[in-house]
Amino acid sequence: MTSEELLVSAAVKSWKTVVGRLDGIVSGADESKMEKQVAPGGNRVRYLIGHLTAVHDRMLPLLGLGDRLHPELDEAYLDNPDRTHPDPVTSADLKAFWAEINGKLTPAFEGLTPAEWLKPHTAVSEEDFAKDPSRNRLSVLLSRTNHNSTHLGQLVIAAKSQA
Amino acid sequence: MTSEELLVSAAVKSWKTVVGRLDGIVSGADESKMEKQVAPGGNRVRYLIGHLTAVHDRMLPLLGLGDRLHPELDEAYLDNPDRTHPDPVTSADLKAFWAEINGKLTPAFEGLTPAEWLKPHTAVSEEDFAKDPSRNRLSVLLSRTNHNSTHLGQLVIAAKSQA
Repeated sequence: MTSEELLVSAAVKSWKTVVGRLDGIVSGADESKMEKQVAPGGNRVRYLIGHLTAVHDRMLPLLGLGDRLHPELDEAYLDNPDRTHPDPVTSADLKAFWAEINGKLTPAFEGLTPAEWLKPHTAVSEEDFAKDPSRNRLSVLLSRTNHNSTHLGQLVIAAKSQA
Repeated sequence: MTSEELLVSAAVKSWKTVVGRLDGIVSGADESKMEKQVAPGGNRVRYLIGHLTAVHDRMLPLLGLGDRLHPELDEAYLDNPDRTHPDPVTSADLKAFWAEINGKLTPAFEGLTPAEWLKPHTAVSEEDFAKDPSRNRLSVLLSRTNHNSTHLGQLVIAAKSQA
C-alpha cells in the first residue's frame, strides 16, 4: 500500500470497527430492548437505531455513492424528536435496512481511492470547496464515524441496564 | 497541502472537534454535576472525565510525544471501576490536568508529518509492525477520538438531566 492508501485505510477500518460494535447492539435488540430509553425521558433504542440508519442512508447521495434506499425513516427518526411520530417500520424491517445500507456503504468505502476520498462531498459547492478543501468525503466519513460512536455510548448504557 | 497532508489534517481536525465538545462538558461541570451518574448505578461524570484524562495522558508515551504527566489518575479512573477508590484530585485539579495534557497533545498532533503518523506506536514491536503496518500512530488517534465520542455521548446525557 502507498502512504496515502495506508492513511485512508485507517479511517475505513475505524468506520468498520464502530459499525461492527453497533451491529452487535442492533442484532441483540429484541422488542423489549427496542423500547428502552437511554435515560429517563430520553431517546428509545429504536429511535437511535432508526436515526443512525437514516443518517447512513443519507451518506449514499452525500458521498456520491448512489440514491437513498429508505427515506421513509426520516420523518420519525431524523427530522423530529422521538415519540412524536408513529414508528414507520417494524423492528425486523429496521434491522434489515441497517444491514442493507451498510452493505452498500462499506464495500463502496473500501473501493474508493485516496484521490476520491479527497473530492468534495455533494453538499458543498465548487466555489466553497475551492476555498476549503477540507470539506471532502473523508471528513464526512470521520464525522459520521464519531457520530456513530456518540450514540453507541448511549446504546451501551441502555443495553447494560436491567429490564 | 499535499494529498497526504489533507488526509492527515482531516483526522486531526476530527480529534479537535471532539475534544472541543468535551471541553464544553468539562468546563460546565460544577461540583454537583461532577457527582452525577450517567445512568442509575453507572459511572459518575467525574470518573469519565478522569478516565479520558488518564487515557489522553497515556497517549503521550504511546505516540512517542513525551513522558506521562499525571499517572496518579490511573488507579481511580483507569485501572478500576468507579467508586472503588478515593478521588485522587480535586475537580479544579482534574480540569487543569485535562487542559494541560490536551495542550501538549493537540499541538504535537498538528506538527506531525504524514510519514510520522504512519510510524508504529510505541506499544507494537518492530516484527509485529512489519506484519501489520496499520498499527501506526494514526490508528491510535482515530481510535482514541472515537473512544472520546463514545463517552461524550454518555456525558451529554448526564449534562442534560436535571438535578
